[in-house]
Amino acid sequence: MLDKLKKQVYLANMELVKKKLIIETFGNVSGIDREKQIVAIKLSGVDYDTLRPDDVVLVDLNSGEVIEGDMRPSSDTKTHLVLYKSFSEIQGVVHTHSAYATSWAQAQRPIPCLGTTHADYSPAEIPCTGVMEDDAIEGDYEKETGYQIISTFRQKKYDYQYTPMVLVASHGPFTWGESPAKAVYHSNVLEYLAKMAYRTLRINNNVGSLKKNLIDKHFYRKHGENAYYGQE
Amino acid sequence: MLDKLKKQVYLANMELVKKKLIIETFGNVSGIDREKQIVAIKLSGVDYDTLRPDDVVLVDLNSGEVIEGDMRPSSDTKTHLVLYKSFSEIQGVVHTHSAYATSWAQAQRPIPCLGTTHADYSPAEIPCTGVMEDDAIEGDYEKETGYQIISTFRQKKYDYQYTPMVLVASHGPFTWGESPAKAVYHSNVLEYLAKMAYRTLRINNNVGSLKKNLIDKHFYRKHGENAYYGQE
Amino acid sequence: MLDKLKKQVYLANMELVKKKLIIETFGNVSGIDREKQIVAIKLSGVDYDTLRPDDVVLVDLNSGEVIEGDMRPSSDTKTHLVLYKSFSEIQGVVHTHSAYATSWAQAQRPIPCLGTTHADYSPAEIPCTGVMEDDAIEGDYEKETGYQIISTFRQKKYDYQYTPMVLVASHGPFTWGESPAKAVYHSNVLEYLAKMAYRTLRINNNVGSLKKNLIDKHFYRKHGENAYYGQE
Amino acid sequence: MLDKLKKQVYLANMELVKKKLIIETFGNVSGIDREKQIVAIKLSGVDYDTLRPDDVVLVDLNSGEVIEGDMRPSSDTKTHLVLYKSFSEIQGVVHTHSAYATSWAQAQRPIPCLGTTHADYSPAEIPCTGVMEDDAIEGDYEKETGYQIISTFRQKKYDYQYTPMVLVASHGPFTWGESPAKAVYHSNVLEYLAKMAYRTLRINNNVGSLKKNLIDKHFYRKHGENAYYGQE
Repeated sequence: MLDKLKKQVYLANMELVKKKLIIETFGNVSGIDREKQIVAIKLSGVDYDTLRPDDVVLVDLNSGEVIEGDMRPSSDTKTHLVLYKSFSEIQGVVHTHSAYATSWAQAQRPIPCLGTTHADYSPAEIPCTGVMEDDAIEGDYEKETGYQIISTFRQKKYDYQYTPMVLVASHGPFTWGESPAKAVYHSNVLEYLAKMAYRTLRINNNVGSLKKNLIDKHFYRKHGENAYYGQE
Repeated sequence: MLDKLKKQVYLANMELVKKKLIIETFGNVSGIDREKQIVAIKLSGVDYDTLRPDDVVLVDLNSGEVIEGDMRPSSDTKTHLVLYKSFSEIQGVVHTHSAYATSWAQAQRPIPCLGTTHADYSPAEIPCTGVMEDDAIEGDYEKETGYQIISTFRQKKYDYQYTPMVLVASHGPFTWGESPAKAVYHSNVLEYLAKMAYRTLRINNNVGSLKKNLIDKHFYRKHGENAYYGQE
Repeated sequence: MLDKLKKQVYLANMELVKKKLIIETFGNVSGIDREKQIVAIKLSGVDYDTLRPDDVVLVDLNSGEVIEGDMRPSSDTKTHLVLYKSFSEIQGVVHTHSAYATSWAQAQRPIPCLGTTHADYSPAEIPCTGVMEDDAIEGDYEKETGYQIISTFRQKKYDYQYTPMVLVASHGPFTWGESPAKAVYHSNVLEYLAKMAYRTLRINNNVGSLKKNLIDKHFYRKHGENAYYGQE
Repeated sequence: MLDKLKKQVYLANMELVKKKLIIETFGNVSGIDREKQIVAIKLSGVDYDTLRPDDVVLVDLNSGEVIEGDMRPSSDTKTHLVLYKSFSEIQGVVHTHSAYATSWAQAQRPIPCLGTTHADYSPAEIPCTGVMEDDAIEGDYEKETGYQIISTFRQKKYDYQYTPMVLVASHGPFTWGESPAKAVYHSNVLEYLAKMAYRTLRINNNVGSLKKNLIDKHFYRKHGENAYYGQE
């Protein structure tokens, strides 16, 4: 059942290893079949060195129940489900502990837009959620993590399709996209932006965000109806 | 004799190379047969590029004497033996000079718990011993290194099973676990935590430790009877 | 047509991957046939993982029109064309977002000449353009990027043959050379200089530029009629 | 002639690539036949990607003349010759622009002994020469570089057999050893020490040098008649 989706999710997980975005078991990729309302996600605690296509399980989008077999899905599954429900256009979600992005998350700081590389992928900073409140931590923690992300985008009035990435304070990054592979691509881009922003501020701590019109120039070279980057 | 243990120790040593935790000869892994009270450990000064399964020797847990052959075990053997004797549940010990963890040790600073990645592996900071006293340096140095580790855990009331890693001031990290492979795994995790803590404090030097309830949430997702990470 | 040039450009693009100067689609290499006034350049938005020799298109130096087929050339093509027109001796141009060089560009700082490695390749700092004016951003942006580079060299009285590299503020580096391969070589050298300058200033923020006579000594060991580096 | 030495030097040069101590053509290794007073050294400007065993030439220790063929030896050859003449026990010399060590050299700072990893290889800091005087730069530059190294060791009363490495201010590191391979080994160790010292001081800028007795403990574990590291 949904073998194609499972394979996509498996391959996207393996891509995380190739791009050096994870070590050991630190991350997970999921994909969704919107029509069937089923999410495919990596098993919990499985080492990437030995990951097999069968280590992807199917979960019901609404109930969160495992549909096939009796293996546990990633412990972050509920966060993925909240994102799929709120961000209605996304088809893939990735969570990593990639080192630079996680360092920004641990520093509880958004990544400012310091250059055109960033503006190519997001017209805004990469937002960082607040630190979670005590009752949320002690409640349905993974679901609350998802709610925090949604609420951060809502408060800041950021568009999840324009800024396909976020930092969860003290935790790490989540990214999404129009496929599991595209979500992994965004994780790779985010790590690169996080690395360059880190170094930029070491060289010149006073540099400000990119000018609004330069951000727009780059963002709309790649997005929207006047885009002229890539092939048609 | 104890060929299986020797092979485990050999493979765990090779894993240090694969995970880029050592260069040249800078590190050693050991494993123990608790029933026979025998420790298997890498030879002293052997280059990892040419390491063979036979480069692991057997040492008596209590006397420290080599049991087979006449090759010298790692110069850090006595430190390993002290750890095996005091931390009664561990089955493997690793010492590396991995670059980020050693930099924290050289800075004589414990690694604060700045994020959930850290909390997944230890509910406390990664402690750093004090600088060794003169008489200990001039005495049985490697044994004293072990005593320092034990005493650091005792003074801080940390649990060696919860925090399977330590920094020896001005020297470098030691880690342990329920097998030689698990101890290597902890060395890899420690290096990653050390790298992210380094960068986090460059971005925001004022960020404090993770909140106690968030530490507990993550630690007990993975440890203890209510754990729900991984497969049963 | 111009198959040899296209192959050179293809190989030079692949070299960027090998030297780890790019991730994903972040960069482009071009080469020129000066006699025919035709530039060969990578297609826009093509992933380096799947790049084939046919992913290089021919563009007219003067009109910027694509000569063969209907695929879009790199979105930075106009910048390349301006450089070819103004820097009459160059045969290859490279644009990357290599992480250290881009961090200096984002910091809006030229890279000072802090050592002999730098002086081996440029007798001056690596200049950084100013931030682009609003009307230029909203005008013919990629062409203006080229004009900024030219104008920076003119104002600072730097020689493009002596300093084959530049940082475009908030954007990233461009390099050039007597062939596409040589331009890639200069991108690799630039990234290395940027990395070492970054670290040097962390260790000693007060270190000044290399003495003029030491710069000249190194630069003229490799360049001009008294050069004695390399083979004749 | 001296094919065995030439092969050793060739292999040691290739080892620099494997250990990632050089990019492009940035470095050179030499070896010496003390009896014949002949030095084998890499050709000038040869790319490591295409280096062949024949790219090593023989040079007379005293005159500096090439003995075989008409290819130019490394432009740093005279520095190597000065080192061989003054440091009478060494059999191999290496010069690299390895990134961390060169950053310390560019910062014009010696690398302090901050940990036992350093003390395992040198009982002293890694010294940094002064910036070269104008007349020396304009005189026999490469020979003067050698003299600077010798004079630094003499002034600081360091033993070249105990501290087999040095930083030349604004330039980069030289290392040596009892064979070309051992000199490369010391280049690798130096880069690692430089990296850890860099990070240590970022974490704690006030940490002082290792205590004298701890330095001695580690250094004499590996050196001298009471050494007990490695095999007999």
